[in-house]
Amino acid sequence: MTSERVEAAEVFFRSLQKSILQSLERADGVGSFLSDPWEHPQKGGGITSVTQDGAIFEKGAVNFSSVVSKLEEDAAVRMNVSPQLISATGVSLILHPRNPLVPTVHANFRFLELENGDWWFGGGADLTPYYLFDDDVRHFHGVWKRVCDAHDPAYYPKFKGWCDRYFFLPHRGEARGVGGIFFDNLSGEFGPLFSFVRDCGSSFLDAYLPLVERRSRTRYSEDHRTWQLRRRSRYAEFNLLYDRGTKFGLDTGGRVESIFVSLPPVARWDYASEPAVGSEEERLLEVLRKPRVWV
Amino acid sequence: MTSERVEAAEVFFRSLQKSILQSLERADGVGSFLSDPWEHPQKGGGITSVTQDGAIFEKGAVNFSSVVSKLEEDAAVRMNVSPQLISATGVSLILHPRNPLVPTVHANFRFLELENGDWWFGGGADLTPYYLFDDDVRHFHGVWKRVCDAHDPAYYPKFKGWCDRYFFLPHRGEARGVGGIFFDNLSGEFGPLFSFVRDCGSSFLDAYLPLVERRSRTRYSEDHRTWQLRRRSRYAEFNLLYDRGTKFGLDTGGRVESIFVSLPPVARWDYASEPAVGSEEERLLEVLRKPRVWV
Repeated sequence: MTSERVEAAEVFFRSLQKSILQSLERADGVGSFLSDPWEHPQKGGGITSVTQDGAIFEKGAVNFSSVVSKLEEDAAVRMNVSPQLISATGVSLILHPRNPLVPTVHANFRFLELENGDWWFGGGADLTPYYLFDDDVRHFHGVWKRVCDAHDPAYYPKFKGWCDRYFFLPHRGEARGVGGIFFDNLSGEFGPLFSFVRDCGSSFLDAYLPLVERRSRTRYSEDHRTWQLRRRSRYAEFNLLYDRGTKFGLDTGGRVESIFVSLPPVARWDYASEPAVGSEEERLLEVLRKPRVWV
Repeated sequence: MTSERVEAAEVFFRSLQKSILQSLERADGVGSFLSDPWEHPQKGGGITSVTQDGAIFEKGAVNFSSVVSKLEEDAAVRMNVSPQLISATGVSLILHPRNPLVPTVHANFRFLELENGDWWFGGGADLTPYYLFDDDVRHFHGVWKRVCDAHDPAYYPKFKGWCDRYFFLPHRGEARGVGGIFFDNLSGEFGPLFSFVRDCGSSFLDAYLPLVERRSRTRYSEDHRTWQLRRRSRYAEFNLLYDRGTKFGLDTGGRVESIFVSLPPVARWDYASEPAVGSEEERLLEVLRKPRVWV
């Protein structure tokens, strides 16, 4: 059940992984990504490319995967379809920089097709800063708005709102970060939608690398680092408690290390720690508690 | 709807928290526990007592709570009862020592009563070592076996097996630690069951403190510490992905910081790290993958 659509998407995602990896290695200068190819117990597999302890990226991963698996009962019920085979191919990436002034970023672009012929695209990119530089956030959102607007003026406002709602920790009353775009179940005419997703994938570096360039040489303190580690535990909470991708991966027998590679290299859970009144840390929390319009 | 049973249990749990706290402070010598009283949005509240950066305990908490809340639809369905008020009182504690040779420990003893009059006890204690000292594990299990046997010879084998099954991470194919005892829905004649739970609570220090005394002065290396931080991320995975107590707490509007105080102070997620063949770290993993009979 490998359709032409799945094949076309797979070819694009495979090459997207390569080009992103090359640029990230160039940006880091020191760390290289080690590629770990793996096979799915049912059919297909992927390549998990991981860097640890680079000059800029404390941990980072760019995953490509293309898998055909049986939807388990639970997952099928959640997706409101009968249990059947599902093809899933995509790229997902996560970058955890060491410097707390450089934001963590996550992006994912994927194509899914069921045995019954239904298919859809999903994806998005979202930014998780530890310190708020408004210009950086505006730049990030600006790139996604431009990409969206070139395809459909309704996309950006819709996908920006979706992102704010999706990356939200109800128990904390906080967004995971300052958002970006998020979309799922995008289906209709394959050509234009594929073109949109290709543009998204190809724009990731434009959205993120300038932030790395601006901030990664700025010195930071132990206090900055402690705050970063505390915020990273919220990242872990989101991924383990709420993330649908994590759930889908575990439900469909995905490779645990490839799914959990998104988790932060180091995280702190300090009891009831609150930032000082009027601090930069508090300013970030205010924005996480009340998502803002950036562009 | 505060029955005599709830009151009796509450009095015991309140005093149990105090006596455990006193002994732990004496054992640590440096760190004291700060008490944070809180109120539940519906009715009741608790006292979360937390220590951070002690001589022995990097993070530790002993919680007392007594809450009356409305069971939400979801939780009621999971418990197979109609939505109604539930009283829950108990003590739960977690100790994360800094020295990787001293195991992490968790214990929880609780009494629950529904508006319809149904009631039950639950609880247990389990050990999570980073390095395996067989004598230590035998001592820990030995205490629980003795306590159980004094009440019912069927208890220990049953509750030991329950513990192994409960504290299990299916995605890792590993137990969280080397177990102990776990029981839930213990109901029947109140007097003898309450006496059993009182004996459990009062035996916690006997089960755990000797291990602290034996190991906390032994020097450890950076490698020991790294391994400890890696294993602690598994602890966080269990608590966030599977723990019913965490779920129950979040579902019934519990206080987030009191629920998440169980999470480790610092944890590492390194990609696909595996212990060296024949190492002490590998020996631990073997036991986690295949729980053992200790006494």
